[in-house]
Amino acid sequence: MLKVAVDTMGGDNAPVDIIKGAVQGAKEYGVGVILVGPQERIKSELARNDISGADIEILHTDEYLVEGEQPAYALRAKRNASIALAVRQVREGKAIAACSAGPTGGVIAAALTFLGTLEGISRPVVGGPYMGIAPNTVVMDLGGNVDCRPDQLLDFAIVGVVYARKLMNIPNPTVALLSVGAEEGKGNDLVKSTYPLLKQSGLNFIGNVEGFDLPAGKANVVICDGFTGNTLVKFYEGMGRATVKWLEEKLKSKLSSQDFAELRNQYMLLTNVADAGGGGLLWSVNGIVIKSHGGSKYSEIARAIGQAKSYYEMDVIGSLKQELATVRNRLKISNP
Amino acid sequence: MLKVAVDTMGGDNAPVDIIKGAVQGAKEYGVGVILVGPQERIKSELARNDISGADIEILHTDEYLVEGEQPAYALRAKRNASIALAVRQVREGKAIAACSAGPTGGVIAAALTFLGTLEGISRPVVGGPYMGIAPNTVVMDLGGNVDCRPDQLLDFAIVGVVYARKLMNIPNPTVALLSVGAEEGKGNDLVKSTYPLLKQSGLNFIGNVEGFDLPAGKANVVICDGFTGNTLVKFYEGMGRATVKWLEEKLKSKLSSQDFAELRNQYMLLTNVADAGGGGLLWSVNGIVIKSHGGSKYSEIARAIGQAKSYYEMDVIGSLKQELATVRNRLKISNP
Repeated sequence: MLKVAVDTMGGDNAPVDIIKGAVQGAKEYGVGVILVGPQERIKSELARNDISGADIEILHTDEYLVEGEQPAYALRAKRNASIALAVRQVREGKAIAACSAGPTGGVIAAALTFLGTLEGISRPVVGGPYMGIAPNTVVMDLGGNVDCRPDQLLDFAIVGVVYARKLMNIPNPTVALLSVGAEEGKGNDLVKSTYPLLKQSGLNFIGNVEGFDLPAGKANVVICDGFTGNTLVKFYEGMGRATVKWLEEKLKSKLSSQDFAELRNQYMLLTNVADAGGGGLLWSVNGIVIKSHGGSKYSEIARAIGQAKSYYEMDVIGSLKQELATVRNRLKISNP
Repeated sequence: MLKVAVDTMGGDNAPVDIIKGAVQGAKEYGVGVILVGPQERIKSELARNDISGADIEILHTDEYLVEGEQPAYALRAKRNASIALAVRQVREGKAIAACSAGPTGGVIAAALTFLGTLEGISRPVVGGPYMGIAPNTVVMDLGGNVDCRPDQLLDFAIVGVVYARKLMNIPNPTVALLSVGAEEGKGNDLVKSTYPLLKQSGLNFIGNVEGFDLPAGKANVVICDGFTGNTLVKFYEGMGRATVKWLEEKLKSKLSSQDFAELRNQYMLLTNVADAGGGGLLWSVNGIVIKSHGGSKYSEIARAIGQAKSYYEMDVIGSLKQELATVRNRLKISNP
């Protein structure tokens, strides 16, 4: 049976919610789980859950990462940290995926150390259709790649295309470059150097888009450096909160409190990037590693198990490798 | 009497609305106007306005810029273009300010050619409290400076501080650097290099802010490169349109059509950056030049005349020069 390795000690609600979620995920999605963490704590949690029919294995370790540690250093000091062991199960072929709600830096460091990145990609790419108001638009990068080279932006585009095809069922996703004007030649140095690469990439490149094109969903994949992307999604989230406050002022005398509460909750959900992000694949890692957010409850952990299984069945890693090779070959032929 | 030079041939509604607005502005704010453009057309428009009590002078030229021309080239080919003559009145001390609703590139090119920038600033800085949802926050730069050096970001901060003090009556404006994390050391190379400059600048620097802090109005002056700023304000505008569409869906059965129309109009106004921008000073030019947006009607032209007068009376240019000198001296002492 396919197995998913779960870091039981990562996240605000570890290990209680992680173990409960893993058991639920195992039963719901018909996969095995390898629970990585202190054996006695895991056993006593399992005793409080109904585990009948679930394929559960325990992999003991007393070490785990905590929030605030310098990740690379902590991983060296704790060779058997739960996240490290979980990721190593993937490398050794004992699990199809690893899941953790632990510190982002630690999860990324473990993934990079034990699985590495796909050839040519130096750091994980973060992105997805995080703006609920434009559900068919993936923005990449939103995270760690704050200073980028043009070839990195091309890689983001490729990752975005695979994301849109596999996870959003868009067969031929449109790709656009975020800039300050629509015409070729508008933009900063990075954008101007990236434009010709995308043009020759064979991807369905539609040119530049501007800020206002994002909420309008003008392209399926929008590419930008991680500084701009991170600022944008956080701004989006902030706009949600500020707009709800403004609406409350304007509507409290005109809507019933129930109607207003419903409107508020829907708009907050639409603009809540953390929730929308939920369990996310570390794109560009050479294996399936899912980072759930730190505050995950058991239901989100269960969903992450399900995601892990479907990423495996979709062969996202294989597709990404193939797409990277295809585009790079095409560029090599254009620029011999 | 103080005089404002007005380019009567710039903008979608030129010369009719420009001349009508200039006459209204002259009467309303008690300043003289120099109408620059084709004498006969100006005279025939003036005949259709009540000009009693207005101090009006005509400066004849048949040349003017049109949308779509390459600005620097057009200015060389049309030495007496109306915008060029208007700006030259400022340089020659015949007018306290020039106003135009003509093509942005042309107005900037004329301002740079005939007035130049303040020492050490290479291009005009665009910014203001353009996000209606955070009316006490100025964001700089939003425009032409898409690739920036740290010292440019420092200049933006100084311009922003003078803007907030003079135009928004905030005596000691807080200044923040837009980044991907609150702590010093978070950010791209540009932000990391700018942080120590701001720290030593003597400005009221409160550190980094993130995207979600903008709509919350966490700082009075937020500094970023023009690529990020331009993307943000356009995204803001797009969010306005997308949110209104979403609200219509949700509220059309729950609000009267009049109540909904009111809500929609208010939110559109709040998120309409072009309108909020309206008549804007070209900050960093060594003289008062106001660029009104292309679609300006006469009332906006009249308001621009009033702005020109109050910028002159506030001595914004002198204050900016003084603040630039003070901060630069302070940094020289810290880093001899």
